[in-house]
Amino acid sequence: MKEFHAFRLEQVDQVVNVIIDRPEKINAMNAAFWQEIREIFHWADQERSVRAIVLSGAGAHFSSGIDLSLLSETAGQLGRDVGHNTELLHAKILELQSSFNAVANCRKPVLAAIQGYCLGGAIDLIAACDMRYASADARFALKEIDLGMVADTGSLQRLPKLIGDGVLRELAFTGRHFTGEEALSIGLVNRLYMTADQMMDDVMQIAATIAVKSPRAIRGTKAMINYMQDHRIDDGLDYIATWNAAMLQSNDLRIALAAQMSRQAPDFPD
Amino acid sequence: MKEFHAFRLEQVDQVVNVIIDRPEKINAMNAAFWQEIREIFHWADQERSVRAIVLSGAGAHFSSGIDLSLLSETAGQLGRDVGHNTELLHAKILELQSSFNAVANCRKPVLAAIQGYCLGGAIDLIAACDMRYASADARFALKEIDLGMVADTGSLQRLPKLIGDGVLRELAFTGRHFTGEEALSIGLVNRLYMTADQMMDDVMQIAATIAVKSPRAIRGTKAMINYMQDHRIDDGLDYIATWNAAMLQSNDLRIALAAQMSRQAPDFPD
Amino acid sequence: MKEFHAFRLEQVDQVVNVIIDRPEKINAMNAAFWQEIREIFHWADQERSVRAIVLSGAGAHFSSGIDLSLLSETAGQLGRDVGHNTELLHAKILELQSSFNAVANCRKPVLAAIQGYCLGGAIDLIAACDMRYASADARFALKEIDLGMVADTGSLQRLPKLIGDGVLRELAFTGRHFTGEEALSIGLVNRLYMTADQMMDDVMQIAATIAVKSPRAIRGTKAMINYMQDHRIDDGLDYIATWNAAMLQSNDLRIALAAQMSRQAPDFPD
Amino acid sequence: MKEFHAFRLEQVDQVVNVIIDRPEKINAMNAAFWQEIREIFHWADQERSVRAIVLSGAGAHFSSGIDLSLLSETAGQLGRDVGHNTELLHAKILELQSSFNAVANCRKPVLAAIQGYCLGGAIDLIAACDMRYASADARFALKEIDLGMVADTGSLQRLPKLIGDGVLRELAFTGRHFTGEEALSIGLVNRLYMTADQMMDDVMQIAATIAVKSPRAIRGTKAMINYMQDHRIDDGLDYIATWNAAMLQSNDLRIALAAQMSRQAPDFPD
Amino acid sequence: MKEFHAFRLEQVDQVVNVIIDRPEKINAMNAAFWQEIREIFHWADQERSVRAIVLSGAGAHFSSGIDLSLLSETAGQLGRDVGHNTELLHAKILELQSSFNAVANCRKPVLAAIQGYCLGGAIDLIAACDMRYASADARFALKEIDLGMVADTGSLQRLPKLIGDGVLRELAFTGRHFTGEEALSIGLVNRLYMTADQMMDDVMQIAATIAVKSPRAIRGTKAMINYMQDHRIDDGLDYIATWNAAMLQSNDLRIALAAQMSRQAPDFPD
Amino acid sequence: MKEFHAFRLEQVDQVVNVIIDRPEKINAMNAAFWQEIREIFHWADQERSVRAIVLSGAGAHFSSGIDLSLLSETAGQLGRDVGHNTELLHAKILELQSSFNAVANCRKPVLAAIQGYCLGGAIDLIAACDMRYASADARFALKEIDLGMVADTGSLQRLPKLIGDGVLRELAFTGRHFTGEEALSIGLVNRLYMTADQMMDDVMQIAATIAVKSPRAIRGTKAMINYMQDHRIDDGLDYIATWNAAMLQSNDLRIALAAQMSRQAPDFPD
Repeated sequence: MKEFHAFRLEQVDQVVNVIIDRPEKINAMNAAFWQEIREIFHWADQERSVRAIVLSGAGAHFSSGIDLSLLSETAGQLGRDVGHNTELLHAKILELQSSFNAVANCRKPVLAAIQGYCLGGAIDLIAACDMRYASADARFALKEIDLGMVADTGSLQRLPKLIGDGVLRELAFTGRHFTGEEALSIGLVNRLYMTADQMMDDVMQIAATIAVKSPRAIRGTKAMINYMQDHRIDDGLDYIATWNAAMLQSNDLRIALAAQMSRQAPDFPD
Repeated sequence: MKEFHAFRLEQVDQVVNVIIDRPEKINAMNAAFWQEIREIFHWADQERSVRAIVLSGAGAHFSSGIDLSLLSETAGQLGRDVGHNTELLHAKILELQSSFNAVANCRKPVLAAIQGYCLGGAIDLIAACDMRYASADARFALKEIDLGMVADTGSLQRLPKLIGDGVLRELAFTGRHFTGEEALSIGLVNRLYMTADQMMDDVMQIAATIAVKSPRAIRGTKAMINYMQDHRIDDGLDYIATWNAAMLQSNDLRIALAAQMSRQAPDFPD
Repeated sequence: MKEFHAFRLEQVDQVVNVIIDRPEKINAMNAAFWQEIREIFHWADQERSVRAIVLSGAGAHFSSGIDLSLLSETAGQLGRDVGHNTELLHAKILELQSSFNAVANCRKPVLAAIQGYCLGGAIDLIAACDMRYASADARFALKEIDLGMVADTGSLQRLPKLIGDGVLRELAFTGRHFTGEEALSIGLVNRLYMTADQMMDDVMQIAATIAVKSPRAIRGTKAMINYMQDHRIDDGLDYIATWNAAMLQSNDLRIALAAQMSRQAPDFPD
Repeated sequence: MKEFHAFRLEQVDQVVNVIIDRPEKINAMNAAFWQEIREIFHWADQERSVRAIVLSGAGAHFSSGIDLSLLSETAGQLGRDVGHNTELLHAKILELQSSFNAVANCRKPVLAAIQGYCLGGAIDLIAACDMRYASADARFALKEIDLGMVADTGSLQRLPKLIGDGVLRELAFTGRHFTGEEALSIGLVNRLYMTADQMMDDVMQIAATIAVKSPRAIRGTKAMINYMQDHRIDDGLDYIATWNAAMLQSNDLRIALAAQMSRQAPDFPD
Repeated sequence: MKEFHAFRLEQVDQVVNVIIDRPEKINAMNAAFWQEIREIFHWADQERSVRAIVLSGAGAHFSSGIDLSLLSETAGQLGRDVGHNTELLHAKILELQSSFNAVANCRKPVLAAIQGYCLGGAIDLIAACDMRYASADARFALKEIDLGMVADTGSLQRLPKLIGDGVLRELAFTGRHFTGEEALSIGLVNRLYMTADQMMDDVMQIAATIAVKSPRAIRGTKAMINYMQDHRIDDGLDYIATWNAAMLQSNDLRIALAAQMSRQAPDFPD
Repeated sequence: MKEFHAFRLEQVDQVVNVIIDRPEKINAMNAAFWQEIREIFHWADQERSVRAIVLSGAGAHFSSGIDLSLLSETAGQLGRDVGHNTELLHAKILELQSSFNAVANCRKPVLAAIQGYCLGGAIDLIAACDMRYASADARFALKEIDLGMVADTGSLQRLPKLIGDGVLRELAFTGRHFTGEEALSIGLVNRLYMTADQMMDDVMQIAATIAVKSPRAIRGTKAMINYMQDHRIDDGLDYIATWNAAMLQSNDLRIALAAQMSRQAPDFPD
């Protein structure tokens, strides 16, 4: 596997742990980060040996969000014409968004494991994952408001699917910190663990559970849930009918039924 | 009232209890089930003496989901041409979906009362109901993933309106069992009861409360909430304005006001 | 500041407290109320010295909802032609809706502070606010159903963004009272306080916290969250990219960064 | 084939000509019409020997639209309560609409052949067909406006896909007659013929041409064009990709390629 | 009737002719224009004696579009902060758009009568009307491109409903002039007249024809066609069913039927 | 500039002519074609010296559509499991679609110049262009139906924006050939020329006209028209307001005004 500057990858059977690996910088998202995450998730999307992905941060914290040097670097590219600057910034923002879209659109489940700080852009990132798990020491904040700006890499777009509208507004307007406990109670994370180690053990275990399911059914299920974030119920019913009309002819259903009868674990091909 | 093979109906005043009645098969959904449920809910939709519907299961369990014999029967109808099979399966899936659409589109409130197992297709069914209530022994699972397939009769379309996105994905990807307690905490059910009997008593009571309201206002309220699952806020405001512009000329408002003044229960016509 | 009949305004620094001020009528929403609230929120939207708004009720209760005399007055204007009446009522309902749209579309955050009764139309009102806070004695009810009518000023349109579908239907169909405790557990309010005084203190404090943020970033954040109530994720990402491409050229980002470096509070212009 | 009161059916090979057969009443749409058309198109949708449908009118005219006796009959069912009447009329209108939805949703192409009068409801009907052809003597009018009402069975919904917005408004606001010539120039009909006989010959010929194509590909093409009337381009591309991923595995592609090589007409199974 | 600076109004029976009245400036749209047009169309929307509106230009030309002095005036208000400027311009553009929205949303039909130049903003204006008629000397151009800017007051939003996508792009990218003849052939105008006088006579006649129809049915028809510019067919069918369920109880249907029987002109109340 | 296998590029000033260059194969779309077209349009999108693009075919014909060898090659990759095949074909179709999306999403105008055959996939391609021009000898056909399949690379998605629904269905169901004359009359092409040479001269000239406009305004105009293919009018108005609020601060407006005053051609920077 390729070497990365901002990430380290560890694969256990069919689960790959994608680790943000700049602990000395609280895993701040620098230029390498934004480009490599796109590359990694495109790879994971295509790589047959990968069936589930865990996303975590090296060291005491998940991530402190975007590296401020990136912002000032971009500021340095601005010229005197507002029109020119606007097109340049527009392209830049779309590029950053595409990095997290690669996570959201990856056809395989992505589980975020969060300890310590998870701030600003890190919230945009975990909002693009399928599920989120945290340790008790996790500290979250939508801190873009304290930079005098509107968050623009996905949190305001994806959090409304995850947490209530009222609490989202309070968190986005105030930028206040909130704990793993509160994250659990508002539905941002699925489960809270005493320690980061316990969290990693359990999250890797959940990922392993998912990895032995039919990969085709997992991909289809994720595609369908993603689809429903933006579509009507009648469109969704029509879409799954069209999809399953083909997929129910695959061998996976037969493999599953045979396994149930023989009371053995099914073995689904990639 | 007509006789059914998979159901039994009991009417108390203006509430009808639609009971899945194959306890010896854990109320598995066989061919008769899928056809009769459509018939029953079309009848309930039209029948003026019915103002609220409770949906429950006979015996120790609500339902174990689709009868696997149905799947193998359908498999037996497949031929050698993929195109032909696909059209056949497409029509079949749309037909199954229409059974639960009949529940969702019934103009009268449907309250699901759930004890014991509520698995696979049974989740699709309760997701099409208006409200869900469970006893402490309820056990749920989106078990389609363990059949190597994507759920296709409504759970992935309707659950996103009921429970958080993150927990939905975990349940759909892992297919793990979850308790009534968890169902309550994630918002899948409105209330949890110690025993199935207590549940039935209270659910019938809630249905009776609804049944004495203005039937027209109840139908309108359900229509509006259904509408908002798929439409913009401005469209919804426009729609209710058009609706109420006519309906506020009905007698129901007058009956309600007169009843409040005389401190007597209002008596709304069917 | 202008005098109002149904309201009283108190401004503390950049926070204005909009107080429904008919305590002897349990703050029932009369003709003056519906017109003045529109006027007040248009003013607050434009007034540069206002950066956050608290909406509260004078006396022991937030509001008992629409003043029934308004309904009978409208009934008195109806004639013999159904078509004529329908157009008249349609225009009337759109007018009432526009009063609460003025709250929802006000570009500045609106925090509702709720004690005592919050019934019928009052629920429609708080659903149009950004956040909701309540004291322990708060009592809520979607009581329109007991008037034999469908709620038509926004609760059925906006509550689905705030609370779960199942519990919404139960509350809308039964019209039953529910406590602040339940309002908190279903996500209708963000926080519960022992007393109304404690609530007011804290809500004014939260509003003050918001008022010192960049007004431009606050407006943008509210616009974006409002936008996501009705739009697809890809549209939302595109929209914020277009917005921020211009706004990131403003001084607010520089002010924020300078303040962080100097460890002083930033001072954002209106 | 069953006997009908308002229709006569003639089948030539795989084309069925559905003839409105009340020439003495200018083919006015009476109660039998509205119910039988639904029945006929459901049958044609399912019947394998039918691959294309021509819809025409017996005698000198296509149809004068809804039978006014139907309107007065419905008026006779109205009672004293506006709410009750509104629900009754709402159900009635939805029922009429479902008759023309059966035409629009029939999975097989429907070609309208129009001579003489095509007025009011008859425009709603031809708007639900796939293609329209007329003889030189055809006379059209959206005459609902002269009944003091808004057209409600589909013309205002479907004509915007067929003709320009500006001309549609003129025709709908004035209710003026327009000729086959104008119908051709605004795109309402595909082709104009000197006589009704020439029209029938050619339309039957076009239908016969369609009937020898792959029925599966024809159904898919119609489904896709219908889909695009209501959906985004990106959704449409995704949908056809899902559909064709299955259908390209069918034998039809092989049959077509073999026929092209052997320069013989392909023979597609039903 | 009030005096206006940029307009003159002439009422003939129930038709009002709204005349842009700055012929010495080729009817360029100055500050007074943008504010008064909003005022006039709000008045016409509410005024019962007005049933149809003709929009025309005094002198030899319809209008040369926005007055360039308005642009430079706005430019003069810009300051040094891009964020501040952006908010100011955003508000300004929305305000200009609202002037033409007042035309599009006016519940009564608006007929544009166009002679001579119809350039830039004048195209945005006629695109907001219901129908367009031109004399042979009319000259059109989407000339915003030659100002180095994107048209922002409605032409790019509304023209796609009126003319084909391919020709729209050519006209918008090149900004070239096109004649009344071409405007007719691409569907932008409904009819072409030899002279402006003939045009005015006929357009006033068409407006008069519309003015004797049922005002309620006209308003409903316009509302429905407007609705279909943005909504699905199924939503449109549902909406008209809800609307007509009330409106068919009005007297207009009876008045129309009685008039047809007595072969007299119906007399619909305002 | 890079060498291509299926294409040849010629640049004249700021216009690039992208020529499909396999005349001996009637410019059939082979594997190289599908990959290179994506590459070329990504390049043209980014390359500052390119401001308008002409797309044409070398030799006597524009293109005969997809190379059938591509279809058989794909067929050769299919295995025994329908599920596996379906996923493989799904990915393949999305890949082909992305080639034409690169044309549609290229931020610069694309003008198709069509002579001779333009069949099957070639129609999907020209539908993704901004404008289409043809010579008198052009011959079109949606011939996918004669391959027993539904067109899946964009024609059914994009043609409804270009030509009427009724004629589209006839062409798609029959697969019949149609001439340049008919293409002009139904609005598929903007203009018809006697010879291919005259066409190329004029199309290059139109492209040159576009190339001297403000590139930023051209890009914005294309973005806006693309946006309106999928969005509501109110969303479009909001979007252009947000866009122009920034862009009106650019120098292009000033350059344009100065040029108009000095009666010289403006010189817009890239």
